[in-house]
Amino acid sequence: MIPASITVGDIATALNVSANGDRSRPIRAVSSLSEATGEELACLSSDQYLNEFRTTRAGAVIVGKKVKLPGDAAGNGSPALLVVDDADLSMAKVLAMFAPAIPRPPLGKHHTAFVAPSASVAEGVRVGPNVFVGDDARIGRNCVLHAGVYVGAEVSIGDDCEFFPNVVVRERITIGSRVIVHANTAIGSDGFGYRWDGKQHLKVPQIGTVIIEDDVEIGSCVCIDRAKFAATRIGRGTKIDNLVQVAHNVILGPHCILAGQSGVAGSAKLGAGVVLGGQSAVRDHVTMGDGSMLAACSGVMDDTEPKSIVSGLPAIPHRQALREHAALRKLPELVAEVRELQTQVAELTRRLQSP
Amino acid sequence: MIPASITVGDIATALNVSANGDRSRPIRAVSSLSEATGEELACLSSDQYLNEFRTTRAGAVIVGKKVKLPGDAAGNGSPALLVVDDADLSMAKVLAMFAPAIPRPPLGKHHTAFVAPSASVAEGVRVGPNVFVGDDARIGRNCVLHAGVYVGAEVSIGDDCEFFPNVVVRERITIGSRVIVHANTAIGSDGFGYRWDGKQHLKVPQIGTVIIEDDVEIGSCVCIDRAKFAATRIGRGTKIDNLVQVAHNVILGPHCILAGQSGVAGSAKLGAGVVLGGQSAVRDHVTMGDGSMLAACSGVMDDTEPKSIVSGLPAIPHRQALREHAALRKLPELVAEVRELQTQVAELTRRLQSP
Amino acid sequence: MIPASITVGDIATALNVSANGDRSRPIRAVSSLSEATGEELACLSSDQYLNEFRTTRAGAVIVGKKVKLPGDAAGNGSPALLVVDDADLSMAKVLAMFAPAIPRPPLGKHHTAFVAPSASVAEGVRVGPNVFVGDDARIGRNCVLHAGVYVGAEVSIGDDCEFFPNVVVRERITIGSRVIVHANTAIGSDGFGYRWDGKQHLKVPQIGTVIIEDDVEIGSCVCIDRAKFAATRIGRGTKIDNLVQVAHNVILGPHCILAGQSGVAGSAKLGAGVVLGGQSAVRDHVTMGDGSMLAACSGVMDDTEPKSIVSGLPAIPHRQALREHAALRKLPELVAEVRELQTQVAELTRRLQSP
Repeated sequence: MIPASITVGDIATALNVSANGDRSRPIRAVSSLSEATGEELACLSSDQYLNEFRTTRAGAVIVGKKVKLPGDAAGNGSPALLVVDDADLSMAKVLAMFAPAIPRPPLGKHHTAFVAPSASVAEGVRVGPNVFVGDDARIGRNCVLHAGVYVGAEVSIGDDCEFFPNVVVRERITIGSRVIVHANTAIGSDGFGYRWDGKQHLKVPQIGTVIIEDDVEIGSCVCIDRAKFAATRIGRGTKIDNLVQVAHNVILGPHCILAGQSGVAGSAKLGAGVVLGGQSAVRDHVTMGDGSMLAACSGVMDDTEPKSIVSGLPAIPHRQALREHAALRKLPELVAEVRELQTQVAELTRRLQSP
Repeated sequence: MIPASITVGDIATALNVSANGDRSRPIRAVSSLSEATGEELACLSSDQYLNEFRTTRAGAVIVGKKVKLPGDAAGNGSPALLVVDDADLSMAKVLAMFAPAIPRPPLGKHHTAFVAPSASVAEGVRVGPNVFVGDDARIGRNCVLHAGVYVGAEVSIGDDCEFFPNVVVRERITIGSRVIVHANTAIGSDGFGYRWDGKQHLKVPQIGTVIIEDDVEIGSCVCIDRAKFAATRIGRGTKIDNLVQVAHNVILGPHCILAGQSGVAGSAKLGAGVVLGGQSAVRDHVTMGDGSMLAACSGVMDDTEPKSIVSGLPAIPHRQALREHAALRKLPELVAEVRELQTQVAELTRRLQSP
Repeated sequence: MIPASITVGDIATALNVSANGDRSRPIRAVSSLSEATGEELACLSSDQYLNEFRTTRAGAVIVGKKVKLPGDAAGNGSPALLVVDDADLSMAKVLAMFAPAIPRPPLGKHHTAFVAPSASVAEGVRVGPNVFVGDDARIGRNCVLHAGVYVGAEVSIGDDCEFFPNVVVRERITIGSRVIVHANTAIGSDGFGYRWDGKQHLKVPQIGTVIIEDDVEIGSCVCIDRAKFAATRIGRGTKIDNLVQVAHNVILGPHCILAGQSGVAGSAKLGAGVVLGGQSAVRDHVTMGDGSMLAACSGVMDDTEPKSIVSGLPAIPHRQALREHAALRKLPELVAEVRELQTQVAELTRRLQSP
């Protein structure tokens, strides 16, 4: 599935740079500096990894132009060097060259799949075994529904989407184009809303929907709940990691990043490009300004300014949190010091009173 | 699926209140004050939203009786007003009026479902595509098993339950009536228990079960483990949000609320009406008293008093936690102040010693 | 499914101890001291539970040899006593005696399962309804694939593995022998990696794999992502609880324990026997030394020493964290005390300046 042979020259051409070394050398895989063999390519993105670079046996190395290479880096037997503007970006391109194809169901509908007669399935769609597509659902061109995917009634899906096995999309959800959803994720379950009626929790009907815009990617075991009314919305280009909770009526702006196990409570609103660290939490009804960041394992209880960085629980500006942590490290001895001061001051007071 | 037309009058009748305005006005959906159109109903539950109310274009507004309406609220072109005792409770009733029907599999068993011959399936049950029902399982009246649901051998399910796609209920679990379980949840997996035998972790068999009482609702991607022996128990009317972990031998009382991503470790015991905030954690073997609350992102390590509110990590009484947070905000400058005091006291001491 | 009758004598023989009491008494189940009936066995592992022991109605009790039994513990009508070296280990053995068989699909392939013609399935394998096995996959001897399991193309699975319903293993993953994976877990989804190209998050291809070694057990709704390149690796004998996130390129050593809802970020490396508490988090690229422990609800940001115990956020040595917590409890009054000291010192200073 990987092209039969890729050479150092092929990679240099793809990255539009020159190659310092043997252009005909074959490269069969990508690896790390410390583990790469002579037929593998590695990456040196910062001076931090110069030690690994000195002893690498990689056949080729992508080098960020900021890196200060040792003088003998391009000697005999050394790896071919490809110096690039942005090592990480170039690495992404090279990984794409080596990416094996994703195994997909064949074109058309597997005979074990159930597709409602009233559903509309565009050309180029692949429907795997045991897939369910409900009444009046619409599946856009070239979509891939892997085995066991559930697409509820009246769901609308754009073009070029890929849903991995056992993804569940409940009824009446709208999904854009080029959306990727990984295995075992649930979209459109009821929001979590109850009213205590004096004897029991009365279920508040969750009659809204979920709208997922174009170019969104969603990890595995993610939950995105339908709105109480109107819509929970995931903005264009937003990326969501595994095991993330997005509650009802949440609005995520475009290009947000939600790291693994983060959670956004009901009706919270994230602006454009907001970043949530792993295991972080956003309180219900909080608004996070464009480009603001919440650190990992932190919980934000109040609105955040655009471009601010907050951390801790409750989250405060990150610099202040660092100062508090530093002070906290000194707190046990501070208590002792205050006790000592109290003794000294009592002694001084005594002496002044009885001279 | 929504009734063809609902008028302001219909809603007023359903809520048993009078309508201030045009009773014949058609209402087609529910929305927020800021987004509602003339054919939509919104809700004003507190003075906090009076600004949105002033500019709303909603056709009708449910108003909590505590809200201080502006004098001209019922003028020409204004929304019809329905003043109610409890705005949220009324809203729940109105949402039910507008709730579209949940698409369900037809009565009977889909031809791709596997139902063991020894299983007992009562009347009115709907078994969707690719459902699995194991030996000697019992499914009560009017239950709905959506596509891909797995019900293990000897599972007993009461009446009027609904299990959404790809829910897994392992063998020998007992579930009451009117229980709702959302997509991709796993009930009855082995509890997490091992014994180190000097060389490896020896698996401790988890031979118990799970008992889920009536009127429980469980979100998506929730894990409720079977007991080591005896039973993990979810009390009547308890509601569990998405991505929650309930470990082996946990006992949850009736009417508890477990918010998203919370976790309860082995053998912990929650009394009646206990509330766990999002991403909170309960240590193993801890007992939480009736009506006690654990704040979001907090972790409780010790038993809690009935009706207490605790927060932080380790969780302490919430008021104390707030005082500590306030003090922590001052800690960096407190360190500086203590340093200054030390200087002053040293100076005073020096002066007193050499007058 | 449980043997028709097990007697106290059978259990004593299995544990290789003598039984103090009636060896012929039948035992039908395992329970707790407080709930056991005369035909049930319970366990007394520490003095802490002596009160429950005094009033137990259990037919037999396993007693750890360290427990100080009351003098009349073996009187008439008392439970049969089996005194053992290690009560918990013995209990694990007894639980295994009483463990009902797990209901499994019959030998061979269910007619609704899809197994690619090029896949290799060894003898003794059980493939349940609606299972998917992709091209060139290899399933070792005696494996059990419960209903709805997805095994992607080119996956290799060793002998004696059991995958519970709806588990998803994406393409090109390698799994050892005696691996257990619980319901609704996803292995091999893409790692979470993007590069901002100035306009959007560009997906970094995740072309690596996952290697799961022998004797690993993985809970429900767990996510183990495939590597960016090379492999995410789960070491031999490691046990992973429910709802755990293991990101791309993570290396877990042998015999680690990851409790529920913990998360390990990209490229982190855990040594042998590392323990993560529930809801804890490991930052990306962090290395945790052999045998180190991260407390529940804590987040480690820096490398840990072998055998160290760390807690808090950011995690610090656990003893220090306890000292800081104790000091924090005093902080609000410390602030007041410093204010009082400031007043006293100002007064002393005033007096010294104007004698």
